[in-house]
Amino acid sequence: VRPRFHLAELDRDAARGALADDEASHLIRVLRLGVGAEIDVFDGRGGMYRASVAALTRDAVSLAILDAVAPAPEPAVRVTVAMSVLKGDKMDSVVRDVTMMGAAAVQPIVSTRSETSLATLARAHRAARWQRIAVSSVKQCGRAVVPDILPPLGLDDWLGRSPAGATLALVEPSAGAGLMLTEVPRQQAVGLLIGPEGGWTPAELSTMVNAGVTSVALGARTLRAEAAPLVALAALFEAWRAW
Amino acid sequence: VRPRFHLAELDRDAARGALADDEASHLIRVLRLGVGAEIDVFDGRGGMYRASVAALTRDAVSLAILDAVAPAPEPAVRVTVAMSVLKGDKMDSVVRDVTMMGAAAVQPIVSTRSETSLATLARAHRAARWQRIAVSSVKQCGRAVVPDILPPLGLDDWLGRSPAGATLALVEPSAGAGLMLTEVPRQQAVGLLIGPEGGWTPAELSTMVNAGVTSVALGARTLRAEAAPLVALAALFEAWRAW
Repeated sequence: VRPRFHLAELDRDAARGALADDEASHLIRVLRLGVGAEIDVFDGRGGMYRASVAALTRDAVSLAILDAVAPAPEPAVRVTVAMSVLKGDKMDSVVRDVTMMGAAAVQPIVSTRSETSLATLARAHRAARWQRIAVSSVKQCGRAVVPDILPPLGLDDWLGRSPAGATLALVEPSAGAGLMLTEVPRQQAVGLLIGPEGGWTPAELSTMVNAGVTSVALGARTLRAEAAPLVALAALFEAWRAW
Repeated sequence: VRPRFHLAELDRDAARGALADDEASHLIRVLRLGVGAEIDVFDGRGGMYRASVAALTRDAVSLAILDAVAPAPEPAVRVTVAMSVLKGDKMDSVVRDVTMMGAAAVQPIVSTRSETSLATLARAHRAARWQRIAVSSVKQCGRAVVPDILPPLGLDDWLGRSPAGATLALVEPSAGAGLMLTEVPRQQAVGLLIGPEGGWTPAELSTMVNAGVTSVALGARTLRAEAAPLVALAALFEAWRAW
């Protein structure tokens, strides 16, 4: 496997591109590659190409773009994981894992029990951090698509923007009967709402019902909050044969 | 939710029991509960009871066992997760997560690329550590069954003992076509082999084929080794409607 680099802007016609910043630094100082070395570059929107290092400076890498290569295929359903922001660095794991699984987008949600606020997230530049984690996870799993990390929103705001496709919400076993995923008709695009450590509040659950959100459940054991998105995506792709 | 404690030996007829060691210490010094406090105790084999603290010493807790309570139900399929031992403490996360998901047993496997040996695992008392992690995860997820943490074995030895039921092996996307889980007939008991960070060797893959193991795949993205068991169990329970 050739090392993989993210290169959002590449001139396919001129067959040239350049790595800068973190990507250049990784090639030059971590992997210590030189002129002629072969790598793969992906544009984050589904394109992946074999490339060779044409020239190096201290901070930048010029590339000759060679032939297109096949990345790991995308799932047959576009899933936006609408994840209540978890405590500490647990959200980092969630972004890493749902990227690996094939999520199309991550919508951070500040819900009642999230123990953070939109202002705090903005001040800490968390969205930029999550974007870097998503790129890093894409490299590991072999995708060429970097999921969109959307600006954090409150639950009501997100539901009010009427996201495309159906919206499912994962509910705790104690919240009563949710459907099994195999009982939900397969969609081309879906929003998947997942709650924080303490679960959804009763008010949030009724907001979701009023917004036409479908409750789904994954068995009767209580899942760790940061494992729930991984488990839900696996069950969804299997139920809908959408891997 | 009442705090949960593991009590392997309880005298249901006499309606009495006693916590010792870590469990007693947790009740006395961490939760600081006193006489009359109500807790749940589970025997690790499916029984769970409400109990009240009858008496306390410095190191032990006497309990009056009250009525039986319903634990989180077990999955409809008994899965033995035969997991290649991973590096560092990643195996701890695997034991925690597959316990949460409802695994019936964990069989640690030392495979070619495991980067450890049976002797090293024994010397480090890893099995005892994993057992404690399983008990702790059972408390969080609400099960009353503690999965059996089996003594580590080499792959050949484990396959040679012809475990009950079918055996499935999760294969990397690059290893070629595995079946989707929905294509595998539902079993009552199954062994689920999952490889280490570097995957299975070609020799191991042919050993498995010769032993009649069915290869299964979970999409085309490369999964992190410690996430694979969680993803595989979720897909299996969904495919077989066995949550």
